[in-house]
Amino acid sequence: MAEGSLDPAVAEVRRAVRATLPESGTVIVALSGGADSLALAAATAFEARSRGLDVVSVTVDHGLQEGSADAAARAAATAESLGIRAQVVRVDVESAGGPEAAARDARHAALRAAAAFENAPVLVGHTLDDQAETVLLGLVRGSGATSLQGMAPRREDEDGTVWLRPLLGVRRQTTRAACAASGLEFWDDPHNVDPRFTRVRVRERVLPVLETELGPGIAEALARTAEQLREDAEAFDEMIHETIEDIVEHAEAGISVSVAALAANPAALRNRIIRLVVGSEFGVSLTRIQTLEVARLVTDWSGQGPIDLPGCAARRTGGRIVFTAR
Amino acid sequence: MAEGSLDPAVAEVRRAVRATLPESGTVIVALSGGADSLALAAATAFEARSRGLDVVSVTVDHGLQEGSADAAARAAATAESLGIRAQVVRVDVESAGGPEAAARDARHAALRAAAAFENAPVLVGHTLDDQAETVLLGLVRGSGATSLQGMAPRREDEDGTVWLRPLLGVRRQTTRAACAASGLEFWDDPHNVDPRFTRVRVRERVLPVLETELGPGIAEALARTAEQLREDAEAFDEMIHETIEDIVEHAEAGISVSVAALAANPAALRNRIIRLVVGSEFGVSLTRIQTLEVARLVTDWSGQGPIDLPGCAARRTGGRIVFTAR
Repeated sequence: MAEGSLDPAVAEVRRAVRATLPESGTVIVALSGGADSLALAAATAFEARSRGLDVVSVTVDHGLQEGSADAAARAAATAESLGIRAQVVRVDVESAGGPEAAARDARHAALRAAAAFENAPVLVGHTLDDQAETVLLGLVRGSGATSLQGMAPRREDEDGTVWLRPLLGVRRQTTRAACAASGLEFWDDPHNVDPRFTRVRVRERVLPVLETELGPGIAEALARTAEQLREDAEAFDEMIHETIEDIVEHAEAGISVSVAALAANPAALRNRIIRLVVGSEFGVSLTRIQTLEVARLVTDWSGQGPIDLPGCAARRTGGRIVFTAR
Repeated sequence: MAEGSLDPAVAEVRRAVRATLPESGTVIVALSGGADSLALAAATAFEARSRGLDVVSVTVDHGLQEGSADAAARAAATAESLGIRAQVVRVDVESAGGPEAAARDARHAALRAAAAFENAPVLVGHTLDDQAETVLLGLVRGSGATSLQGMAPRREDEDGTVWLRPLLGVRRQTTRAACAASGLEFWDDPHNVDPRFTRVRVRERVLPVLETELGPGIAEALARTAEQLREDAEAFDEMIHETIEDIVEHAEAGISVSVAALAANPAALRNRIIRLVVGSEFGVSLTRIQTLEVARLVTDWSGQGPIDLPGCAARRTGGRIVFTAR
C-alpha cells in the first residue's frame, strides 16, 4: 500500500511505535493476541525493517481458560506471518492473591526471563484507554499523585527489565481499526468483559457514565492528568534522591531522620521522605493518616510519646525521628 | 443538652469548626440557608460564645428564583435566633457567562464587601461531598494537579479576603443530621437538583455510579487526593517563588527566562515556570500542549522558530526564552 493511502489507524500506531523503538538490537513484544498487542506487533515489525531491529514476540499461555493454548498458537502464527520470531510460553498460575494478580505475576515473570535472555526491552500494548482506567482505579485508592500517575511510557525495574508502552497516547478503538485494516484477526479475551474484575467495571460502566454526564474527552483528560502527575512525582523523587543520604542515619536498631531537615522541607517532601524511609527500611507502606501522625512529631511537637506503626515505631529524640522495628 | 448526650452529628460539626475558628475578633458565615451553611452557622455561634467572638451571617439574595427574598429572610431569622448578627444582601446578577458563574460572582462580591467592612474572614460551608465533586469536575479538565486539588481549607485572596472552609472533612449528610438534631429548618435550593448544572450531574449521577461499581469510600478517597495534591502544589509554588526572581528578566517588549535555569529544573517545575510567566505577564493560561512546545525550546533545541501562543510569542535567543506580546 502506498504511504499516501495508508490507513490512518495503521499510520497512527506506526507513528507511536516509531517514536519509541530503539535504533538497533532486539525488542520483545508482549503479545496476548488481543487487538492492542497485535496492532503493536504489526507496527513494530514494520518499523523494525527499516532499522535492522530483531523482533521477538512472547505470548504467555496462562492455561486458565479452555482453548488458551490454541489462542496462544494463533497469536504466534500471526506474529510469524509478520516476520516476527514468535514464542509461546506456558506458565503455571498460582491462585494466591486472586486470579487476576496471579496471572499478571506469572506473565511478568515469563516476560522478564525473555527480556534477560534476549537482553531486550519489552514493548507492552497498553493504550490511552488502559491509562484512563488505571487513573480511575487509582482515584479509588485515594493515595494522591502516586496512585493517579498511571503507567509510565518507560520503566526500568530493579532487575534491569525495561518496559516500554508506545501506545499510551493511542485509543483502543484505533488498535482495533488498525488490525481490521491490516486483515489481522485478533482475540477478544472473555476476561475483558467479566464484571467480576474492577477494571472491567471501570471500562464498561464507569467511563461511559463519565462520558455521558461530563462530555466526551474524559479518557484523554485522565491520560493527560496521569502524564502531569508523573512529572510531579519524578520531580519529587529527584529532590528526595538528592537530599536523602544527608539526612538519614542508619543505627543499630533502625533508622533515623533529622528533625531540622524534615522541618525545613514543605509538607509534600516531608511526608514523602517519611513514607520512603519506613517503606525502604521496614517494607511497610504507611497510610496518609499514619504519615501525618509521624509528621506531627516534627511540625506539632509537644513531647508526645512513640507512635506505633505497622512493623515499627517512631519517636522523637535528640533532634531526630527514630524508627525502630517492633 | 449535656456534652455526654450531644448528638454525634452536631458534635462533629462543632469539632471541625473549633479547629478553624480564630480566638477573637469577628467572623462572617456565608449563609445560604441550606443544611451545610446552617449547620456551620449554628456550630460557629456555639463555639464563638466561649471565645468572645462576634459572628455575622451574610445571606445573599440573588433574586433569581421566586420566593428567594423569603428564603433569605427565613435564613437570617434562624441565624438571629442563634445569636448571630444576620444580614441579607440583595444582589443583581449579570447573566453573562452563564447563570451559575454570574450568581457565584455576585455572591462573592457581596461576601468580599462584608469581609472588608468587618475586617473578618469568611466561613464557607463546603463539605467533603462538595470537595469530591470539585475533584471530579477537575478531572474532566485534565490539567493535572492544579485542577484536582479542589478547594483550600484556607485561602487568602489578593484583595486580602480570607476564606475558611471548616467542613471539608465533614460529609453532607452529617450537616443535615446536625440541623435535624438541633431543630433547624434548612432550605433545599432547587438548583441543587437541576441536571442542567454539571456539578449536579456529578453529584446525582456520577458519584453514585462510582460508589456502586468501585465500592463505598470514593468521596473520602477523592477528598484525600485533593489534600495531597494541594500539598504538592504548595511545595512547587514555594520552590518557584524562591527562584523566579533570579531567572526572569523584564524587557521592553516582554519578559524572558534563562534557558540554563529552565534546563536545570525538572519538567514539573520547568512547565510550571513557563505557565506562570506567560500567565502573569500576558494574562493567558497555556494548555499543556502549548507549554510543552515552549519547553522544547529548552529541552529539544534544533534552531526552531518562534512559537505563536495566545497573546504572545516565544522564541529562544541569547540563552534566554523571550516572550513578547503579539
